Amino acid sequence: MTEKTMRPSTYAIIEPEEASKLIYENVAQVGVEEISLLEGNGRILAEDIYAIGDMPPFDTTAVDGYALLWEDGIETRLIIGERTAGKVSDVTVVAGTAVRIMTGAPLPSGANSVIMVEDTSEDNKKLIVRKLPQASDNIRPTGQDLQAGQLVLKAGITLNAAELGLIATVNRPRFQAVRRPRIAIISTGDEIVEPGEVAAYGQIYDSNRFSLVAAVRNAGAEAVSLGIAPDTREGLKNLVERALAEYDGLVTSGGVSVGKLDLVKDLLEEMGTIHFGRVNLKPGKPLTFVTVEVDGKRKPVFGLPGFPVSSLVSFELFVRPALLKMGGFAELSRPVLQVRTEHVIKHSPERNEFVRAIVTSHYDPETSNYWYSARTTGAQTSSRLLSMLGANALLKLVPGSNEIAEGSIVSAILIEQI
Amino acid sequence: MTEKTMRPSTYAIIEPEEASKLIYENVAQVGVEEISLLEGNGRILAEDIYAIGDMPPFDTTAVDGYALLWEDGIETRLIIGERTAGKVSDVTVVAGTAVRIMTGAPLPSGANSVIMVEDTSEDNKKLIVRKLPQASDNIRPTGQDLQAGQLVLKAGITLNAAELGLIATVNRPRFQAVRRPRIAIISTGDEIVEPGEVAAYGQIYDSNRFSLVAAVRNAGAEAVSLGIAPDTREGLKNLVERALAEYDGLVTSGGVSVGKLDLVKDLLEEMGTIHFGRVNLKPGKPLTFVTVEVDGKRKPVFGLPGFPVSSLVSFELFVRPALLKMGGFAELSRPVLQVRTEHVIKHSPERNEFVRAIVTSHYDPETSNYWYSARTTGAQTSSRLLSMLGANALLKLVPGSNEIAEGSIVSAILIEQI
Repeated sequence: MTEKTMRPSTYAIIEPEEASKLIYENVAQVGVEEISLLEGNGRILAEDIYAIGDMPPFDTTAVDGYALLWEDGIETRLIIGERTAGKVSDVTVVAGTAVRIMTGAPLPSGANSVIMVEDTSEDNKKLIVRKLPQASDNIRPTGQDLQAGQLVLKAGITLNAAELGLIATVNRPRFQAVRRPRIAIISTGDEIVEPGEVAAYGQIYDSNRFSLVAAVRNAGAEAVSLGIAPDTREGLKNLVERALAEYDGLVTSGGVSVGKLDLVKDLLEEMGTIHFGRVNLKPGKPLTFVTVEVDGKRKPVFGLPGFPVSSLVSFELFVRPALLKMGGFAELSRPVLQVRTEHVIKHSPERNEFVRAIVTSHYDPETSNYWYSARTTGAQTSSRLLSMLGANALLKLVPGSNEIAEGSIVSAILIEQI
Repeated sequence: MTEKTMRPSTYAIIEPEEASKLIYENVAQVGVEEISLLEGNGRILAEDIYAIGDMPPFDTTAVDGYALLWEDGIETRLIIGERTAGKVSDVTVVAGTAVRIMTGAPLPSGANSVIMVEDTSEDNKKLIVRKLPQASDNIRPTGQDLQAGQLVLKAGITLNAAELGLIATVNRPRFQAVRRPRIAIISTGDEIVEPGEVAAYGQIYDSNRFSLVAAVRNAGAEAVSLGIAPDTREGLKNLVERALAEYDGLVTSGGVSVGKLDLVKDLLEEMGTIHFGRVNLKPGKPLTFVTVEVDGKRKPVFGLPGFPVSSLVSFELFVRPALLKMGGFAELSRPVLQVRTEHVIKHSPERNEFVRAIVTSHYDPETSNYWYSARTTGAQTSSRLLSMLGANALLKLVPGSNEIAEGSIVSAILIEQI
């Protein structure tokens, strides 16, 4: 055991806004890669996508029915052929004739209207028409949906079902997307034990790493768990170096407090640039942000506090936006609602406190307006992970007083759907 | 080419509510499996999780500092030892003494208060105290966060960062979760071509399958693309049989319209029970729902229309809730908001029309109320996938009139975040 005297942190405490700015300025999009249509869900498009041709590429029918001349009116026609979508027979519609046509098939030449099968009957190759056809009825003209050369999707959008359908429509089986950041996750602390092993007296089970793997994935990144860091400076250094060599960034939990045996901050100080080491935040004050140059790349390390709630709340506020930026997402922020407090909330008079809460929506049918209320999730201790359960928002309570009255309006950062 | 006469569909048209009910009654949760903590994100818990012991398991400190007796007041103490979280030395605090203690370490016997390092200084094994300690300061008593035997998480909840942290905390490296439904996806139609190949005249590129793979994944299920179905009854039958033997359900697109060459409905009629074959819906009228008994299991087949928007809208309204139910999700519905239309909207006077729209929120700081407005995404043709782009809602327009006035209040189903 070292006999170094235990001393408080000497890092300046910065405001949350300053911390966000420093992180934003020091992380960058990780790069692009070619992917296939089946891999595209949730990815960020990294090139503009244009229509190569018109869509539909030919005049076609929107319904199953008969292609005919509207000028023939309601008179009975002779059925002279059939067109399905995939089998295109060469047939021309002339006065007094009609061609059976299936949805999506090219319109036969000559035809200028399509009548729905529901408005007809067939009798021995004769078509009986029960509704007066109009010019262009049920015809989808060439290029109605997309025109050749048209910009269909802009680089930077998030790909979902409709966007992927459009990329397929314009015949792009592979395309450029932003690579998902690959983030290593390490837990530190000689008191934590892998779940499944046996905790000795003084030990507890590691939980932060499993929470953080989920949180990283929910920020569109790949999460790789590197386990619990060894208890020695040398072992920790080797693991951190390997993580930074192989991955785009590193998230640690624990080891950033003021204790004399908290190795992480010391090590990171030696390896890279500490942009900040404390934030005026509750929970999450010891949050540390470091960048390390590795092979010419600046890689971020987020040192999160060890208490489970401190770890998750500081991840939510600071690491999530960073990972989204690295992954090319345009929108880095969660939605914020102004909500009315359902009860008195005690809070820190000195620090920006982020309180876990349940926001409920209320609708007034007379005015068609909505308002939102919020109640906290019980005891807000940093260690009490139960306070995150069911929470769909973090209420931001600014320093000044030490409580806010029932019915006050505060900002709620929505972390889940209401 | 068959010479079977083309005839309209004979399936009764049912209302959307009836269709939802029939689907709900005929799909069931697919079963459970054991998974690990690292696989848990987004999964549905399938067992109750209890605390095996107290958390914290011993009296501990919430801060780095010194364990001492509060009754000694502000007098200087002799430092007699040190406790880190993982290395527990056997030391007892008595009057006039203090023990260095790191966050999370068990409280040494005798101590009844912990003073933060920030409120102290050390001088040659002497501890100088600059703040009067109070009883129990900074002590986290045994069981403060969780008590042995306590129900921590109930079966049925969705697992996210906090929930997974709690499962780790109570030392459950593996646990029961609902299995993700495995859903096969097939496109049909002899006019569609795989992206990357060359479309002949009359052909277009398959897009629905790629959209549906994304949509199935977004409903918490596994999606397996089985390609474009062969153009023959025998080939289609073999593919559908294989899909139903290997997967929990099947989604097809195309082949459910009224055309005489639409093989899918005919085949499904032969293989299973058609619960409905048409819905009073725009877009999506030909939506078909079938169940087939395979090895004693009832497996759902959703026959979606071929037009891209019809396919995606009917998926959203009917297939998504079914997959969520199969996957064990408690909440099957999207949030619905009452919104004010920004302009006149023409719609079908006969069918329930679901119009793609962009909902915007408006905040009134005077009343702290919100209201929401909606505008459509342009031409609402069933083929025009662009009408899905940027849409965050589907407006439900009920039959009756053929337009709704600007400023009307309508229901908006939120399919994306506002």
